[in-house]
Amino acid sequence: MPAPIDFYFDFSSPYGFIGSEKIEALAARHGRSVAWHPVLLGVVFKQTGATPLTQVPLKGDYSKRDFARSARFHGVPAFRLPSVFPISTQAPARIVLWLQRAKPELAVGALHALYRAFFVDDVDISNPDRAAAIAAQSGVDAAAARAAIDDPAIKDALKVENDKAIAAGVFGSPFVIVDGEPFWGVDRFEQVDRWLLTGGW
Amino acid sequence: MPAPIDFYFDFSSPYGFIGSEKIEALAARHGRSVAWHPVLLGVVFKQTGATPLTQVPLKGDYSKRDFARSARFHGVPAFRLPSVFPISTQAPARIVLWLQRAKPELAVGALHALYRAFFVDDVDISNPDRAAAIAAQSGVDAAAARAAIDDPAIKDALKVENDKAIAAGVFGSPFVIVDGEPFWGVDRFEQVDRWLLTGGW
Repeated sequence: MPAPIDFYFDFSSPYGFIGSEKIEALAARHGRSVAWHPVLLGVVFKQTGATPLTQVPLKGDYSKRDFARSARFHGVPAFRLPSVFPISTQAPARIVLWLQRAKPELAVGALHALYRAFFVDDVDISNPDRAAAIAAQSGVDAAAARAAIDDPAIKDALKVENDKAIAAGVFGSPFVIVDGEPFWGVDRFEQVDRWLLTGGW
Repeated sequence: MPAPIDFYFDFSSPYGFIGSEKIEALAARHGRSVAWHPVLLGVVFKQTGATPLTQVPLKGDYSKRDFARSARFHGVPAFRLPSVFPISTQAPARIVLWLQRAKPELAVGALHALYRAFFVDDVDISNPDRAAAIAAQSGVDAAAARAAIDDPAIKDALKVENDKAIAAGVFGSPFVIVDGEPFWGVDRFEQVDRWLLTGGW
């Protein structure tokens, strides 16, 4: 059984959302599964000195246009830029980490529900109550999800996962690692595809 | 006759080099020509607060790997990261601007020669004498090219062209504008291709 593809993402990342809608089919074409890693880019950006794209002069206006155009290009036309953006993503990230430990069979469904709530239905998933309610729609116990967001053990787990991601070289979203080879951006998925096919070039 | 594609590039940009090797074939498939615009990203970066990729923590190591991998992926395997990098690109940019005004039939050949000298043969084209010598290999008068680099009128022309590029929203390299639609990066060439085919989506 070949190793899973590592998929790192921030719940506030438009390109991460587009990637999340495509990565499983891409992996499956090559007999691979996906290991999902929610990270907090805000923490990473402190190390790289990066600013959220939409706040950068010149780049900001372009990026908003490119988000929507790239979403349509990649077959995710339901995308729309949320009215509150960017957001802090501790709440959804902690729900996913908790599920991966407590109810792994529900983790992937919940993460898609959370991502779509934010980037399709304009739900502010930085709000713990709303994030728990969205997770509940995919079969998760709402009260337990809400409690997990404030659970010190889950908070610590997210810090540990974030540090591990940075140690692995992750600095953006989406970020894919295939057999040790790093790929940043949904615009590298074609390269990911060829790498999986050929093992490198 | 449909309008040319605008292709903005900095001579120190690896992705700009890869793009420069592909843009003419892409344009030609759609009956378009290419309008070449050398720009100085250093000036643009002052507005966007950007830093050269290779100097950013985490991103720097990744980007070096991605330059070479992307070059091979896009069919430009001769690429190699120059030993002096990044460089100031006034000298090659001014030669191209001068040729576009004085000997337009030689401009495109010279710009390819200059770009390849830097990214294939490791020639430091920031050096005015070397840049003029490279241009001479593509049929340009070496002394005239060397003089153009110090010509106040050409210096001013580059400033004007840079300001026009910024006013058009250009903030990176390569940057392509097709009928008013902006695309940043060689990784958007697929979108450029589809845009030229369909007029948008």
